[in-house]
Amino acid sequence: MSESDQDNAAAMEATVVEYLTAFNRGDVPRVIATYAEEGVLMAPGMPAAEGKGQLSETYHDVFDAVDFDMAYQIKEVVQTSVEWGFVRSTTEGTETIKASRETVSAQYQELFLLQKTEAGAWQIARYCTTKVSP
Amino acid sequence: MSESDQDNAAAMEATVVEYLTAFNRGDVPRVIATYAEEGVLMAPGMPAAEGKGQLSETYHDVFDAVDFDMAYQIKEVVQTSVEWGFVRSTTEGTETIKASRETVSAQYQELFLLQKTEAGAWQIARYCTTKVSP
Repeated sequence: MSESDQDNAAAMEATVVEYLTAFNRGDVPRVIATYAEEGVLMAPGMPAAEGKGQLSETYHDVFDAVDFDMAYQIKEVVQTSVEWGFVRSTTEGTETIKASRETVSAQYQELFLLQKTEAGAWQIARYCTTKVSP
Repeated sequence: MSESDQDNAAAMEATVVEYLTAFNRGDVPRVIATYAEEGVLMAPGMPAAEGKGQLSETYHDVFDAVDFDMAYQIKEVVQTSVEWGFVRSTTEGTETIKASRETVSAQYQELFLLQKTEAGAWQIARYCTTKVSP
């Protein structure tokens, strides 16, 4: 693997870690900044959110309803071409429903499809997350 | 888009349609045949299944428990390099729990990451499916 490949892998992982930690803080602007302009979110319990406008609405709704306290594990980081790659991760922790103050354990898997911009930033192009439990 | 690009897009979509229709029939061998050797499934309610051995066990367990009657829609087909691409789809229909004979409506989204073999076949390398409802 060339130094450039290693740089790209590190940059892809950094984007995903930035996303996961911003998500955990409920930080909508930082979450949205990790997405490409036409990025798509596929998450449990909702139709796909397509583009930064829908993404912003969706994440505001999610963070208005739920507090997350999740730890992540990066499972793999694979660059598939000059400007594409993917990252797989798992997250595990608790969700607190704000309305009821009920806290439940939760576990997810994530598949991030990343695209490199002309400026050299790796952004989330497509993202699917699925609930392992409950 | 060159003729070859169109051929690749058609072949990627055909692999996903083959997967979705084999899944709907509960046909484990045909489902497994659409995966790459090291293919990974990320689906609701279970940890990731990695490689054809785990995939075969997982699909046998799923089809032993549930009958699916789902219709699919292909949302996009994108080739990202000579040997990589992705397909996004949605599925909607009913699931019947075999033990209780209970039938419920169900709706999913799917993100398929496909890789082309040296022999020219497009196979599922990574696949994440998430439940929209219930």
